[in-house]
Amino acid sequence: MSAHNCNSRQSWKVSASIVAKRTSNPIRAIVDHIKVKPNVHKSVISLALGDPTLFGNFKIHQSCTDAIIKQLNSFQSNGYPPSTGYQHARQAVADKFTLPEAPVTAQDIILASGCSGALDMCIAVLCNEGDNILLPRPGFSLYQTCADSKGVEVRYYDLLPENNWEMDLKQLESLIDDRTATVVMNNPSNPCGSVFSKQHLLDFLAVCERNHLPVIADEIYCDLVFSGNTFYPLASLTQTVPVLAVGGLAKKYLVPGWRLGWIFIHDRNDIFAAEVRDGLNSLSQLILGPNSLIQAALRDILHNTEDSFYDDTRVQLEANAKLSTEILSRVPGLRVIVPQGAMYVMIGIDVAQFKDIPNDIVFTEKLLGEESVMCLPGSVFKCPNFIRIVFTAPPEVLEDAYNRMAEFCVRHHI
Amino acid sequence: MSAHNCNSRQSWKVSASIVAKRTSNPIRAIVDHIKVKPNVHKSVISLALGDPTLFGNFKIHQSCTDAIIKQLNSFQSNGYPPSTGYQHARQAVADKFTLPEAPVTAQDIILASGCSGALDMCIAVLCNEGDNILLPRPGFSLYQTCADSKGVEVRYYDLLPENNWEMDLKQLESLIDDRTATVVMNNPSNPCGSVFSKQHLLDFLAVCERNHLPVIADEIYCDLVFSGNTFYPLASLTQTVPVLAVGGLAKKYLVPGWRLGWIFIHDRNDIFAAEVRDGLNSLSQLILGPNSLIQAALRDILHNTEDSFYDDTRVQLEANAKLSTEILSRVPGLRVIVPQGAMYVMIGIDVAQFKDIPNDIVFTEKLLGEESVMCLPGSVFKCPNFIRIVFTAPPEVLEDAYNRMAEFCVRHHI
Repeated sequence: MSAHNCNSRQSWKVSASIVAKRTSNPIRAIVDHIKVKPNVHKSVISLALGDPTLFGNFKIHQSCTDAIIKQLNSFQSNGYPPSTGYQHARQAVADKFTLPEAPVTAQDIILASGCSGALDMCIAVLCNEGDNILLPRPGFSLYQTCADSKGVEVRYYDLLPENNWEMDLKQLESLIDDRTATVVMNNPSNPCGSVFSKQHLLDFLAVCERNHLPVIADEIYCDLVFSGNTFYPLASLTQTVPVLAVGGLAKKYLVPGWRLGWIFIHDRNDIFAAEVRDGLNSLSQLILGPNSLIQAALRDILHNTEDSFYDDTRVQLEANAKLSTEILSRVPGLRVIVPQGAMYVMIGIDVAQFKDIPNDIVFTEKLLGEESVMCLPGSVFKCPNFIRIVFTAPPEVLEDAYNRMAEFCVRHHI
Repeated sequence: MSAHNCNSRQSWKVSASIVAKRTSNPIRAIVDHIKVKPNVHKSVISLALGDPTLFGNFKIHQSCTDAIIKQLNSFQSNGYPPSTGYQHARQAVADKFTLPEAPVTAQDIILASGCSGALDMCIAVLCNEGDNILLPRPGFSLYQTCADSKGVEVRYYDLLPENNWEMDLKQLESLIDDRTATVVMNNPSNPCGSVFSKQHLLDFLAVCERNHLPVIADEIYCDLVFSGNTFYPLASLTQTVPVLAVGGLAKKYLVPGWRLGWIFIHDRNDIFAAEVRDGLNSLSQLILGPNSLIQAALRDILHNTEDSFYDDTRVQLEANAKLSTEILSRVPGLRVIVPQGAMYVMIGIDVAQFKDIPNDIVFTEKLLGEESVMCLPGSVFKCPNFIRIVFTAPPEVLEDAYNRMAEFCVRHHI
């Protein structure tokens, strides 16, 4: 019986799927409602986007672009890689990141279309519709987008600004029930710019261990930490908790557009071996992995560029962090939570000190309209009455923006 | 109440999600069970993989690699593009492919991580779990992988070898019911190498129209058609049926590893406008689109290379198709369905003519074991007692392989 006899096919009504409808970007949902235009008399400075390439002051090393050019001219790397990545590229990642305390081989690496693609695969492999997932608040909005898309209930655990954005582990543990599939932790943190201490990570792992909770560790900002802080890969601190850690070229290597990310399967007791490894392999077949040229150049990129180049990046970011803290700490009504790493700083807005700024969204709107300075309201990270500043702009641009912010705050202060 | 009081969290048992478990590659499921090793006395010739770069005889034009090198050296295209692609890249695709009968603008283009990524998004936006989708048999296995992954029931419509692999439209229509979300059509076809006539496409569209069935048109092999055949973009033949067409650089431009695909939203009556466009935009945010360098070079790649280069590719492929047909048509027990386009030919195996070859899987196993020639059994495309040959190898390699196949068939013939 063909369907043209069927009432339900009598007209053109094509809906989007439930999955598509529940996939949304919380940043866009808020930012797209900001209708204020920048002040035409002042140049626009955007401190909103976590993209280190925007201002031209952070560039990947020429040796890395040369490595891609070598591949292009060889015409040898234009074909399909295996869906989990070229073996030699996976090996290059393993060689770079393996540690005695957290050993990985090529078999423990899956290449993905950016760290976002890696995160999406990790959430997809661990979570069923109807499960719940623990996400940090404030946190990177893509976690929620991925979870919502899959019909996974989001439960937020708090990061505490008064403790350098450490996780509220007591509250985190209270959220766990028998449908909790995994917890996402992010260190160093976007949007907080925080770096967790070894002891805090051990305390977190103890919670995961006693609740048998596998972890997705978003460590895309690994190594971008400032003096006095140390980055500890989460997996290096546990022999028992299974960890899917994600990383990529985007931030440290300053090429977010290249879309080359990876998953580390840390699983020293074969807990993931039964199903999760196969699951990740299967999921990788849906879009067949990242660009072959970047994969082919990955060993050169990861192994042949002097460490001093990356040290320089970090030193510049640290100087920018210090500049941001120094200027903004003196501004009335603002509270700087001093960043320890990454490229972000969260600034508290004491709305009680302002006469006409009731919340972070109005703050960012008025700041844009009066001073042409763009930053993201904390609300997009589920953290009202904060704003997030990306401090990758050159120092003179940051100073200009911060001076405008200072004038703005003085003007609106009680 | 924390979960360590809860029995279900008393041990480490981490399962893969239902989605991961139902995501599988039918090719791997069959090919991985072929345990036969190639004959060590003969060089291995693989005619199995639909990757035109394998033998080095098909290479993208130098002007295209130069376009990427230009972007690399500018350091201007390393940041995040919008998730649907750079506006100028979408415009470049629109400018290249728009037709008076099927006009598209940049707003109708969504860039994706390869044509596979484009297909996955199209299936994801149109199909809910529990819906059904009509797929061609024989057909590209990724369609099933994407559908299975989403819990979408697969219903196969037959392609008829006796009619140059035209769709069995009567049978296709009989499969439609009120849960049929969409139909995937593929022209030119993988694995068939067929090219549909204008009349056949019109007949297909009539079925879609009277059933109000939106179409996903996989046209990745567009323009790869041989003398006497014409490729008609499906959307150019209808003013009423909404079509999501997919394409990309992989085949015509000979760079499948670059993972640059696209979706054309053909929707002249705003049927997709209500929800499907937004849905595609939303889904694009999960992995944030393809590599920025390739996107940035897209206008140069699509518009600045002489057509003669692509004509040469087609002429070579057509010569290979002719060679394949000529040699293999003379082999006892084989039946060549003459290819009209793409890079594939399906060969029927008349198992009744062989003494010890009961099916296509045994045929490919024995052929590999005795002659070191690899091809895919039709079973991986749901088409038993055919084999698929990829004819992108240089002519002398093809001749060698076909001569071995001829000896093999004579040896096993009754």
